[in-house]
Amino acid sequence: MSVGLKALPELLAVSGVSLGTASAGLRQKNRDDVTIICCHPGSTTSAVFTQNRFSAAPVQVAKKHLGQSSPRALIINSGNANAGMGEQGIHDAVGCCAELAQQLQCTENEILPFSTGVIGEPLPVDKIKKVIPACIDGLSEKNWPAAARSIMTTDTVAKGVSQQVSIDGVTVTITGIAKGAGMIHPNMATLLTFIATDAAIEKTVLDEILAGCVEQSFNRITVDGDTSTNDACVLMATGRNVDARITQVGNEAGKTFMSALQDVFLKLAQAIIRDAEGVTKFMTIEVVDGRDEADCLQVARSVALSPLVKTAFFASDPNWGRILTAIGYAPIDELDVAKVSIALNDVTVLKDGALASSYTEEQGQAVMQQEEITVRISLGQGQSQARIWTSDLSHDYVTINSEYRS
Amino acid sequence: MSVGLKALPELLAVSGVSLGTASAGLRQKNRDDVTIICCHPGSTTSAVFTQNRFSAAPVQVAKKHLGQSSPRALIINSGNANAGMGEQGIHDAVGCCAELAQQLQCTENEILPFSTGVIGEPLPVDKIKKVIPACIDGLSEKNWPAAARSIMTTDTVAKGVSQQVSIDGVTVTITGIAKGAGMIHPNMATLLTFIATDAAIEKTVLDEILAGCVEQSFNRITVDGDTSTNDACVLMATGRNVDARITQVGNEAGKTFMSALQDVFLKLAQAIIRDAEGVTKFMTIEVVDGRDEADCLQVARSVALSPLVKTAFFASDPNWGRILTAIGYAPIDELDVAKVSIALNDVTVLKDGALASSYTEEQGQAVMQQEEITVRISLGQGQSQARIWTSDLSHDYVTINSEYRS
Repeated sequence: MSVGLKALPELLAVSGVSLGTASAGLRQKNRDDVTIICCHPGSTTSAVFTQNRFSAAPVQVAKKHLGQSSPRALIINSGNANAGMGEQGIHDAVGCCAELAQQLQCTENEILPFSTGVIGEPLPVDKIKKVIPACIDGLSEKNWPAAARSIMTTDTVAKGVSQQVSIDGVTVTITGIAKGAGMIHPNMATLLTFIATDAAIEKTVLDEILAGCVEQSFNRITVDGDTSTNDACVLMATGRNVDARITQVGNEAGKTFMSALQDVFLKLAQAIIRDAEGVTKFMTIEVVDGRDEADCLQVARSVALSPLVKTAFFASDPNWGRILTAIGYAPIDELDVAKVSIALNDVTVLKDGALASSYTEEQGQAVMQQEEITVRISLGQGQSQARIWTSDLSHDYVTINSEYRS
Repeated sequence: MSVGLKALPELLAVSGVSLGTASAGLRQKNRDDVTIICCHPGSTTSAVFTQNRFSAAPVQVAKKHLGQSSPRALIINSGNANAGMGEQGIHDAVGCCAELAQQLQCTENEILPFSTGVIGEPLPVDKIKKVIPACIDGLSEKNWPAAARSIMTTDTVAKGVSQQVSIDGVTVTITGIAKGAGMIHPNMATLLTFIATDAAIEKTVLDEILAGCVEQSFNRITVDGDTSTNDACVLMATGRNVDARITQVGNEAGKTFMSALQDVFLKLAQAIIRDAEGVTKFMTIEVVDGRDEADCLQVARSVALSPLVKTAFFASDPNWGRILTAIGYAPIDELDVAKVSIALNDVTVLKDGALASSYTEEQGQAVMQQEEITVRISLGQGQSQARIWTSDLSHDYVTINSEYRS
């Protein structure tokens, strides 16, 4: 199941970006699992990748290619991560790029490869190469929904968002898709996300925009504390909307665009949590009144990662003692427990380090019956704040992850 | 269930230590839940406590009392942690000490209080006070098994170990008990453990011995990454065995004693993991060839804490990609993935960063069928090593922790 996610909303075409998908039967039959995303010559592309040292072969190849040229196309497969395969993995990722490059009549370093799925099994390169022509034949600007479905693994819902924003009287379109439901942890650079806009943005500005958006969205979610080997987030600007030129982040056009883009990033990041493996609760951990943002994040992450907090939420049990415990072991320099307060939505549970006199177990239980719950923690030390989004720990999480390869 | 734990072995009396238990009906009926442990005048006592900032009231009181006097008795209740209760909690913990002190005709700061159980509910002080006379009436040097059972919460098996060692021709006895199955994480100072010996050991030497033993045993286990508010480990030396005097850690007598004591600590710490909430697998994460011990510990903890690794082990699935992933995000300064090797028991899976040519899925599956598995990770960087013991993540873990308060 998922929490608060509707079926895929309308995904608007982005002029200059076309997408094609096909089924190579990599893991499941009868579903598309190979996706090609082409962008118009002159587009700029920025990407961030996992910080896991065992970065997958496609991550290593994509990073290298991105440093050498401006990408013409992305090739993405689900069902196999092509991670932990050593030199063979690199060879396989480059092989897919070379095949696609030949058919698109460009060079192999103009292709970025992406893989997601099981780690530690050889990539079925031949199966992928075989369906590249079908992907190319199907290329269309209308295929965002098919691509959103094609990149899924344990996701139960396809995830995508479109947004339009007016900049200097010109309508700019932003469309993005994302996948991910497990092996999700914030101290990283995201999962698989592809976002495009028709605005014209130079590479250096695009890099700055991407870094800012990721830090406040994908880097603020966690499902299980496991930073994947394959995470990647790609932002493409086709510049086909020639009148919409973003030249810097700081001016009015830049701010307007960033605000709309940030909204897309946040919705996609939250969609990952809403469809987290086994999710029954969508939890916002909000830490306020901290000395600095780093402290607030550490406390929020301690709470968001605690299996005991997560199982209590699964049980709809207002077991605030576990929240208090997780705050107490957060690795921050100073904490005055006598100043800490905890609220579940608008119900104050802990006030200045002790059980709030107004609190009743019935109030707590009423909040916990809801699917979306904000845990608000005040540290009583300053003016900083931070938010993390996370999911509960359910029987379905255990089922999904103990049966994943079977 | 538990893994590799037999019924409580014979627990030898330690001259100078007597124990009494009674049922106060704090959480479950028809089982003892209050324990008193008295030690002979002249005994020395050393203790380490949780590093959680929200340390429970009894932890705060025990720390204070230990600094003021030499303990005559410990009072321990299960079923209620007396944590998160602010000033009332302190008042309640001191109240229990005062009542016991009056009956033992000593001062209240000669009593150390301990509590374990649900966090965030007021301690039923009157119920505890009421059964103190029954505990005192029952005091006996033979009551270690009853005490081991009385301190249990979600434990399924009572945990205790006895050991005798000959020091300069004198037989010294060591007996210890422990409880704990969830909210267990190494970066701390343990759970509830009480260990006694009849040897004569000065307080400063005893402190040094305790710190050394805890670091290599209780601080090397994890169930769920949650450091409890109530952890405490107490080591008592009665000195009743007057010919067995340990005057320093470094001499032969000290080394012989430490070795025997370390064995007791390790067996008790491993017993916690063997009876971890929902455990089906007892996992040893052994990291070798690291630059230093700290690096090895970080890598071992990343793997031991990963919910994805833990669910794979629950499924008996040799999903080594998840182990590789957890190694890859361990927070260490340098890692050359091309030098990393992974073995499951004696089966090499990853060799120098790539799938071992000798490895077959059948070999991996054969190892995973076993209840006790060693994950051996070589970093290929140096000579250091470290081990962590942990359990898998099963449906029962979720069930136990989502139904704990109901």
